[in-house]
Amino acid sequence: MLCQWAILVGATVAFVPGAPSGVMAQAVKDLQTPDSPLVLKAQGSLFVGGDKAEQTEVELGGLGPGGHIAVNQMYVRYMVPQGGDGNVPVVMVHGATLTGKSWETTPDGRMGWDEYFVRKGHPVYVPDQVGRGRSGFNQALFNNVRAGSAPAGSLPALLRFSDEVVWPNFRFGSQPGAPFPDSQFPVTAVDELAKQGVPDVSYGGIPTPNPTFKALSDLAGQLNGAVLMGHSQSGRFPLEAALLNPAAARGLVLVEPGVFPDLYTDEQAKTLTTVPILVVFGDHRDTPTGISSRLSWQLSFDGCQELISRLKAAGGQAEMLDPAARGIRGNSHMIMQDKNSLQIADLILQWIDEIVSKRRAESK
Amino acid sequence: MLCQWAILVGATVAFVPGAPSGVMAQAVKDLQTPDSPLVLKAQGSLFVGGDKAEQTEVELGGLGPGGHIAVNQMYVRYMVPQGGDGNVPVVMVHGATLTGKSWETTPDGRMGWDEYFVRKGHPVYVPDQVGRGRSGFNQALFNNVRAGSAPAGSLPALLRFSDEVVWPNFRFGSQPGAPFPDSQFPVTAVDELAKQGVPDVSYGGIPTPNPTFKALSDLAGQLNGAVLMGHSQSGRFPLEAALLNPAAARGLVLVEPGVFPDLYTDEQAKTLTTVPILVVFGDHRDTPTGISSRLSWQLSFDGCQELISRLKAAGGQAEMLDPAARGIRGNSHMIMQDKNSLQIADLILQWIDEIVSKRRAESK
Repeated sequence: MLCQWAILVGATVAFVPGAPSGVMAQAVKDLQTPDSPLVLKAQGSLFVGGDKAEQTEVELGGLGPGGHIAVNQMYVRYMVPQGGDGNVPVVMVHGATLTGKSWETTPDGRMGWDEYFVRKGHPVYVPDQVGRGRSGFNQALFNNVRAGSAPAGSLPALLRFSDEVVWPNFRFGSQPGAPFPDSQFPVTAVDELAKQGVPDVSYGGIPTPNPTFKALSDLAGQLNGAVLMGHSQSGRFPLEAALLNPAAARGLVLVEPGVFPDLYTDEQAKTLTTVPILVVFGDHRDTPTGISSRLSWQLSFDGCQELISRLKAAGGQAEMLDPAARGIRGNSHMIMQDKNSLQIADLILQWIDEIVSKRRAESK
Repeated sequence: MLCQWAILVGATVAFVPGAPSGVMAQAVKDLQTPDSPLVLKAQGSLFVGGDKAEQTEVELGGLGPGGHIAVNQMYVRYMVPQGGDGNVPVVMVHGATLTGKSWETTPDGRMGWDEYFVRKGHPVYVPDQVGRGRSGFNQALFNNVRAGSAPAGSLPALLRFSDEVVWPNFRFGSQPGAPFPDSQFPVTAVDELAKQGVPDVSYGGIPTPNPTFKALSDLAGQLNGAVLMGHSQSGRFPLEAALLNPAAARGLVLVEPGVFPDLYTDEQAKTLTTVPILVVFGDHRDTPTGISSRLSWQLSFDGCQELISRLKAAGGQAEMLDPAARGIRGNSHMIMQDKNSLQIADLILQWIDEIVSKRRAESK
């Protein structure tokens, strides 16, 4: 079942005209060094939230007798720029089958949004969703199934996107290995994006509601207010966090949210009118995804437009950032990793400056 | 099965004399800010290694038809200090059921070794072991078991340490909630350590040999040489990486390695004589761990002493750093998180300066 890189080179890159050979594996030498140093007042990591679970020896995998472990905590890495204390912090949450790595160094070795926003003066906080990456997940059921004390069918599915599904679903091209002529995604490094994938237990493997909502809300509260940014699967998480503590949500940036029915009651919508909201979508949204639960991203775009209209009609501050409508073409679902990612970041930073920071200044 | 923090407060902190109440959950306000800014030439993350696996729709958790995914890659976060280009990089690998978080901000909010070594001029690289955290793991077998197409007993155990096991095994005290009077571990924040735990698939859930060995060796090669530091489960990983490419291993620091039989052939031992080796152990090593596979850490210490003697007899440069023998008492298994963690770091940095860097300078 395991095969070497050569297989995928044959499956995809052979179709990329002009793709350089031998660059499939990112190396230290491919990492770009910025022109100027990054000066941080502080950096590090912490956990937000968490519960205690009592587990049996079997549930712990046999590492000693039964006892308690932490579950449902959210790992967060942060960087605070020197001199940026007064600026609004930005929390960046990743999408399905991914981790906070989404916002770090791009697959082709360029600066991620995490560092770019710090360089623009904002403290940046990058979580791993509860159940993913360094946040871990509750392994008890898996070990009970292994021991025969729970039915195999009770396991949650562990999700991964295949390389082949990613091409149309993340809108690099209609088919694997065939990028759109104007694609902004660095497709020669698409295998580095593939390495960002981890098993996703979100559907059955974490409590309902998702503890990440509360953790994001709590983090924003601890920060005395923050811009909450979600992507794809987590595109609506900022809305959920804002509903828990609207005063701490100083702005919401929904980057390419997934399936987006209008979930909210009139009372919830009224709450959401108190927070500035920006929705961001890339190009080629009518590409068939090949995934039955979301036939195209245009459907998500349309759902977000409806929500924006509803919130605006109720007196809210909500708008769509559609770079393609401004002549910036070819952006993908992984817009924070696109070749023009910093151009898109600048548009979001402009919105933070003009809407979020100005509102804050006026309220003081 | 889920209970709130109050349960563990009752189980542990009630036994800690003078423990402040209400500080169990680390908050942003508990994070200490250094006196001076951190100036980085570069920071970011990359992946090292990785293979391609072809998987079925079931194996992918149902997210579209069968296809290929990346497996066995190793996530690495890095920080390069401004002006530190000429200094030897240090790679820090975490232990069982943990991630690279081990080396970041301590459970009570102090600076981690990752930042401290950077501030001392060394580029620092912090991986998540293959199969853990942001490196992900191969989920195919789990989904096959869920679908009934593989036997439940074929699953690997997913390991976690309970809070109760951690106290004697990590040598905070002989019993949960009862720290040694001289314990250096910040026991009032022990629940923050608990949040660092993630499921560990190392025993059956990753290929043999562990792909982390080769990834560490490759990373050291890409860096034109590095000090490789392992901890606990990964304590011997630097030795394994050095055997794959001894020229790239400029020094090996084995922090509290686990069970340590003398695994190596005479030929391998000869190779290991070409690389300087430092072994580091904390105090209270004769505490019964409560874990059958390692009755006490003194056994690991003794095994390391034997290896050191063997390598020295063969002309190697190997030594034990035992702070307790120097009068520095009470260090735990999580020595990089202990209250005197920077004092221990200074002893390791001194060894790097005197042995590794000097050897490098002499060979030029």
